[in-house]
Amino acid sequence: MIHSLTLSDALAEHARSRPQVTAVVDGEVRLTYPELDERVSRLAAALDGLGVGAGDRVVWLGQNAYAVLELLLACSRLGAVLCPANWRQSLDELRFVLGDLAPGAVVWEPSDVTTALRDEAGGAWVRAGEEYERLLAGAAPRDFAQVSDAEPVLALYTAAFSGRPSAALLSSAALLAHATTLLVVRRMEPGFTFLNNGPLFHVGTMMFCLATFQIGGTNVFTPAFDPEEVCRLIDAERVTQAFLFGPMIDAVAKANAGGKYDLSSLRFVAHSAEWNDMITVDDSPWCRSKMGGYGQTEVGGMLTFLGLAEGGAGPAGRPSPLAQVRIMAPDGSEVPVGEVGEICARGKTLFSGYFARPDLNAEKSRYGWHHTGDLGRREPDGTITFIGPKLRMIKSGAENIYPAEVERALKTHPAVADAAVIGVPDPEWHQTVKAVVSLKPDATATEDDLITHVRGLLAAYKRPRHVTFADTIPKRGFTPDYDALDEAHGGGNYPGA
Amino acid sequence: MIHSLTLSDALAEHARSRPQVTAVVDGEVRLTYPELDERVSRLAAALDGLGVGAGDRVVWLGQNAYAVLELLLACSRLGAVLCPANWRQSLDELRFVLGDLAPGAVVWEPSDVTTALRDEAGGAWVRAGEEYERLLAGAAPRDFAQVSDAEPVLALYTAAFSGRPSAALLSSAALLAHATTLLVVRRMEPGFTFLNNGPLFHVGTMMFCLATFQIGGTNVFTPAFDPEEVCRLIDAERVTQAFLFGPMIDAVAKANAGGKYDLSSLRFVAHSAEWNDMITVDDSPWCRSKMGGYGQTEVGGMLTFLGLAEGGAGPAGRPSPLAQVRIMAPDGSEVPVGEVGEICARGKTLFSGYFARPDLNAEKSRYGWHHTGDLGRREPDGTITFIGPKLRMIKSGAENIYPAEVERALKTHPAVADAAVIGVPDPEWHQTVKAVVSLKPDATATEDDLITHVRGLLAAYKRPRHVTFADTIPKRGFTPDYDALDEAHGGGNYPGA
Repeated sequence: MIHSLTLSDALAEHARSRPQVTAVVDGEVRLTYPELDERVSRLAAALDGLGVGAGDRVVWLGQNAYAVLELLLACSRLGAVLCPANWRQSLDELRFVLGDLAPGAVVWEPSDVTTALRDEAGGAWVRAGEEYERLLAGAAPRDFAQVSDAEPVLALYTAAFSGRPSAALLSSAALLAHATTLLVVRRMEPGFTFLNNGPLFHVGTMMFCLATFQIGGTNVFTPAFDPEEVCRLIDAERVTQAFLFGPMIDAVAKANAGGKYDLSSLRFVAHSAEWNDMITVDDSPWCRSKMGGYGQTEVGGMLTFLGLAEGGAGPAGRPSPLAQVRIMAPDGSEVPVGEVGEICARGKTLFSGYFARPDLNAEKSRYGWHHTGDLGRREPDGTITFIGPKLRMIKSGAENIYPAEVERALKTHPAVADAAVIGVPDPEWHQTVKAVVSLKPDATATEDDLITHVRGLLAAYKRPRHVTFADTIPKRGFTPDYDALDEAHGGGNYPGA
Repeated sequence: MIHSLTLSDALAEHARSRPQVTAVVDGEVRLTYPELDERVSRLAAALDGLGVGAGDRVVWLGQNAYAVLELLLACSRLGAVLCPANWRQSLDELRFVLGDLAPGAVVWEPSDVTTALRDEAGGAWVRAGEEYERLLAGAAPRDFAQVSDAEPVLALYTAAFSGRPSAALLSSAALLAHATTLLVVRRMEPGFTFLNNGPLFHVGTMMFCLATFQIGGTNVFTPAFDPEEVCRLIDAERVTQAFLFGPMIDAVAKANAGGKYDLSSLRFVAHSAEWNDMITVDDSPWCRSKMGGYGQTEVGGMLTFLGLAEGGAGPAGRPSPLAQVRIMAPDGSEVPVGEVGEICARGKTLFSGYFARPDLNAEKSRYGWHHTGDLGRREPDGTITFIGPKLRMIKSGAENIYPAEVERALKTHPAVADAAVIGVPDPEWHQTVKAVVSLKPDATATEDDLITHVRGLLAAYKRPRHVTFADTIPKRGFTPDYDALDEAHGGGNYPGA
């Protein structure tokens, strides 16, 4: 255990190293690291008293709160796993999550959905707020057996494979390794203050929360994104960074149009003129890299960082210093530079598989590499381009063709509004490529125009043989509804189907 | 193995991510990362051909050279361990090292000592230079089984415990974790160029070499410290950082007094006016922290960093974000804040024990913590003060007294040139504290003066009961020769002796 460092261990160190530093701020609550450590010890004892042991799951059903971090650290101390569930989900979706995880304890904030779930479930449900505080107050801190940092401690639900979402399990070792890469790439230092205004059930906010924790900074929590409250908190807590992009930045700038709040502590990318005047603009690669790169929950957050490859050819930048990337063909071989394949990964930040999905885990880790399910390309300068989700593959002759790559090429034509690509059965080639394209209003383009357009962009075998025009492309979420497209346009004969 | 990341894996990634980046420069040799990767594959195959397998040792007997990094990476690919031996040692000392490690292969540069050793030893000795190049040229690159990053890959000899030096074993996981902490604390970025002018058999240079490697920077090698050559290389290679301090900086500034070389690429701490004019002075905590902190080979390099606690009370700063520190009493309990105890550590950067020293390893890792053998103190602000080597302990009543702490207090008296503290047998207290003090020329101080002086600095039980004056304090290396002092001044009755 001499090499092990859990989230709980890191907290125990902070309690000694940073006795006067504020660890969390949430409304009226302000806790130093020793105070947080003491509460986490009592919370771990309280959960233990509810029957939660090593390997058990605890679910948080609520908006952002410091209790999420407290529960995560208590689970680390116990060897249990916290899942901060997506409270925006429907009754059916959350019922699935609870059935899937069978948690030993649920800490919940009341809503129509959570109250209904509470009524139908048994077991240890603790209401956030007073009941949660009474639970802590009634427990005596005590020591627990040392937990290995290879044990999972956080579960985050990710995209639906085979029709249902799965909980990606992340260990302390992976979370702290990823946090360290953020310390490098974002140049986070002691005193860093992060405003948790994005959802903590998503890795995008959680990873900054944990990096701030790791460097001994201050995490400020707010239930959800409220522009005026974000301004107030940045001013009051001298926040270094928040979870903001595009329209959120505009909303914050608008809320502070009168200059009521001093936002100068915020180090952020340039945006609008109003915004730039309010904050401290940081145009270094370390700030620009914020949203740049490629990532997913299963790699702990970010796998590649634009900040490590400013000016490189691949918009996703270069791999994390603690990971390896291979662009792979379906047979596990590495595809040549410049060719599209599946982005695969190994390294210290990777997840420990999905909870209770042995078949999916075996498939995703085939050939000893985590298969992200996303397509990418290694550029000649070594940087990575993210192409799109893999979803399905077309087989034409001996060649593998990924719809996302062909769609990307079609969409570069000025007349194209949207495009989707399917495989249609072919007696000679197994399948050939067919494109379904919707044009922009008042724009025109023929089948020949589009096939000619992609000639310089794609290898010959990837080019559509046929183009069909449609008013819109049917979608499932953000991606084409390939099943509907196949049905409407004669698709089929997919490999492995 | 999905979570494993060896030095060899990191090289394989760099070969893909940074195909055009220069990995090493050494005299006429310039290798990109793909070229280095290809040579390492051939070197691993060549070592395998010499009979070197997983767990075997390889020894480098020579000055600094790119071959040290190449051999380390080849050992990582094979699962073997490289020891870059201290070539400044005597024939007897190096004979001990070779006997201790029983290496499967030795790569050597000729000197009186190494030639004598070559003549008396059997086995695979490969002369650096032409013979080494022939060995590589004759080997075909091939794949080896994946090695776990928990396996040791580097052996560095450290201070003599129980009369003989021991080889601290460091794994890929520990070395890369430590390298990552340097990326954080020194803000190393892609493009970083490090001049390896300090000895690679010492962790102080090796840790910067590996951090530069990890971020995909350039390592420049020079056989040993030569001020003019250091200037030439900084200019020619646009070096970001070198291994320089005090008198070395003066020598470099003197060598460049005429301004022949452009040293402006060097980011370094301010020193003399001449120096500051030549380089780019970096007065940020990230640069000042360079030499600040506490470390030893056994923790991978640095355990605490001043850069993480600028302005704190403890001159050693705060712990690495990947480690824990406890200040411990001999019984394994934590001593209170402000009290001196042994600095103990856990975490990702720690070594894997000493090669072939099971008893010493058990002793050093008692209570589940690595015992550094050094004394320290946790200050009320959580920072760490390094007191000195533990060496021995005095027991007075129930209290533990460490000579280094009392000596430190005595040396703050303006008349004291040097001081050593021993324990003398006492029928009532087991031992009492006796100080042996040498005064500065023409300075005067009485026994009472000195005892009064330390009154405000030390707890009553730690204060010397007797002070004896001597012309000089006998030394073993940099530390007092306690055996000689005991013999001369009546010391004895030490606990555990």
